[in-house]
Amino acid sequence: MEKIEHIGIAVKDMEAAIEKYTLLLQTPCYKREEVQSQQVVTAFFQTGPNKIELLSATHPDSPIARFIEKRGEGIHHIAFEVKNIHTELERLKAEGFNLIHETAMEGADNMLIAFIHPKDTNGCLIELCQKRS
Amino acid sequence: MEKIEHIGIAVKDMEAAIEKYTLLLQTPCYKREEVQSQQVVTAFFQTGPNKIELLSATHPDSPIARFIEKRGEGIHHIAFEVKNIHTELERLKAEGFNLIHETAMEGADNMLIAFIHPKDTNGCLIELCQKRS
Repeated sequence: MEKIEHIGIAVKDMEAAIEKYTLLLQTPCYKREEVQSQQVVTAFFQTGPNKIELLSATHPDSPIARFIEKRGEGIHHIAFEVKNIHTELERLKAEGFNLIHETAMEGADNMLIAFIHPKDTNGCLIELCQKRS
Repeated sequence: MEKIEHIGIAVKDMEAAIEKYTLLLQTPCYKREEVQSQQVVTAFFQTGPNKIELLSATHPDSPIARFIEKRGEGIHHIAFEVKNIHTELERLKAEGFNLIHETAMEGADNMLIAFIHPKDTNGCLIELCQKRS
């Protein structure tokens, strides 16, 4: 695992959250993107080498809508950058980690992504991501 | 705000969590430290320019014990590095953010720290930290 690529934060009202995080981080949102497979819209902020990704649901069945219904708004996941997501998924599987996705899929921000089950990581939802070339 | 200095993760069993995160991150825990004011023990891992801080309670009244009782193990806070914590706290207060600590205090890993109330940041507990010179 390399740096923390981003932290995902689940929010209800994207416009209000963008306004708040622009003030907090003193930097503008540099990209908004819809990820249809996850039924979310995203908004990104750069903080040094890392990013903050705000996430809001576009459908009541979205994982983000279910997360907020269960736990309220808040930190949803940590994403680590990896050099090769395929070999990293193989390594983690061999180490006994329970993978939510055994193969990588397309995520926001031009990334290949996959998630590790939080039951194996002390309740943290962890995403691996690799920049697509 | 500069980079994400660290992510704090609340865990019940520190030894088991260190073993798990050593495997996950493929890097050893480089420091353990008790923070008596917060009634926690901490364990740090370096991931590129960022850190993962595991936190476990040393007393049932610890903020970490109360967090786990209420929400279970998981991501507890995001810490951002700041150049000057005093001026940053003044700025955030002037912008209307509710501060848990109006003045900085000593934290783990040779840092001056202060927290922003999660009600103003979409449920995220946010820490500011400045390296002590």
